[in-house]
Amino acid sequence: MTDKLEIWTLDWVPMTNGPAGFVRDLRLRWACEEAGISYDVSTVPLAEKTSEHFSRQPFGQVPFIKDGEIEIFESGACLLHIARKNENLMPGDPVGEAETLQWTIAALNSVEMVSVPWWFLEITGAKENGLTDWLESRLSHIEGLLSEREWLVSDRFTVADLLLADVLRVKKIRSFGDRPASEAYIQRVTDRPAFQKAHTAQMAHFQAVDATGN
Amino acid sequence: MTDKLEIWTLDWVPMTNGPAGFVRDLRLRWACEEAGISYDVSTVPLAEKTSEHFSRQPFGQVPFIKDGEIEIFESGACLLHIARKNENLMPGDPVGEAETLQWTIAALNSVEMVSVPWWFLEITGAKENGLTDWLESRLSHIEGLLSEREWLVSDRFTVADLLLADVLRVKKIRSFGDRPASEAYIQRVTDRPAFQKAHTAQMAHFQAVDATGN
Repeated sequence: MTDKLEIWTLDWVPMTNGPAGFVRDLRLRWACEEAGISYDVSTVPLAEKTSEHFSRQPFGQVPFIKDGEIEIFESGACLLHIARKNENLMPGDPVGEAETLQWTIAALNSVEMVSVPWWFLEITGAKENGLTDWLESRLSHIEGLLSEREWLVSDRFTVADLLLADVLRVKKIRSFGDRPASEAYIQRVTDRPAFQKAHTAQMAHFQAVDATGN
Repeated sequence: MTDKLEIWTLDWVPMTNGPAGFVRDLRLRWACEEAGISYDVSTVPLAEKTSEHFSRQPFGQVPFIKDGEIEIFESGACLLHIARKNENLMPGDPVGEAETLQWTIAALNSVEMVSVPWWFLEITGAKENGLTDWLESRLSHIEGLLSEREWLVSDRFTVADLLLADVLRVKKIRSFGDRPASEAYIQRVTDRPAFQKAHTAQMAHFQAVDATGN
């Protein structure tokens, strides 16, 4: 038994041209590193999804967490749950908190809602990608904003930057069009030691499994 | 000047085959009705989007709200902001609150992230809809869940049900496949007097504008 926050991820993903370095437990490892919260990582099998996995995450995805009596899924919900306990991730004043919530949801529902399906159509080889103009429009709005500010909320890093940068740093999105302010933003956010530490830890996790051949 | 919560929506949308009855200020009207919070409705022009509109909502969308000193956009963020002040929308205990957050984000990022782009490809006449299998999978998982429970969280209505039902009740989604538990859920949630009141108010708002010919 442990009182540490526990993050579940997959037991294995391909190391090349795959999601290693992008599996969404990274968002939660990163948030914990920013907040100075120690955590454990557990896994569920990718190859054969178990009923236990579905009972914890009804779509059969990761991550999900256990934090004391709280067991929740959805990386966005887990981020907000962690952020509300820590001012490193979310300002304590009502306006800063509401704006962090706003931009966290915007990253999920205005940017990622277009970018992930667009990416999905690209990688599944759709003959036409009917989401391209929509993605272009959303990314242009973001580029305009990021050319005028360093951070989304209160002139400081928040969990909303963590999430938006993670949404934008997907390779195909990053190489779609030329957006210098967004690129500088991704660099600025992912240069943070907490990202580096979380990313290294996730890569090590998947590499360790890969090396055993399991 | 007013101390009431203020909700912004569009000044006009088409009354037939259009979004009337589905514009997302409805979610916020509905939440306010459930919570017994009085609100005012203001509009921004659809025909020519103003710089003031973009300064309040960087993607040029609605709704956005003003609640005292707090001004935020994203219907999901506004819902969570309103819900956290009112137990009619969100249980007060930590587990109930976290699970409401989880399901609110799931409605936005696991269901709507697939259903809205799928719907967009349908209405823009894509020759193939590469998101169909993904949508089918997500809706099946939801159908399975809703065949075993009446509400998403704590055996009671929460803002997560408001949102998921609003995501699922989109006509094209509703008529895609046969999901009796989801259909009964949509009916159960939208039968609520607060939905009826909010829906009637939104329709009256757009009808009033339509009648003036403006």
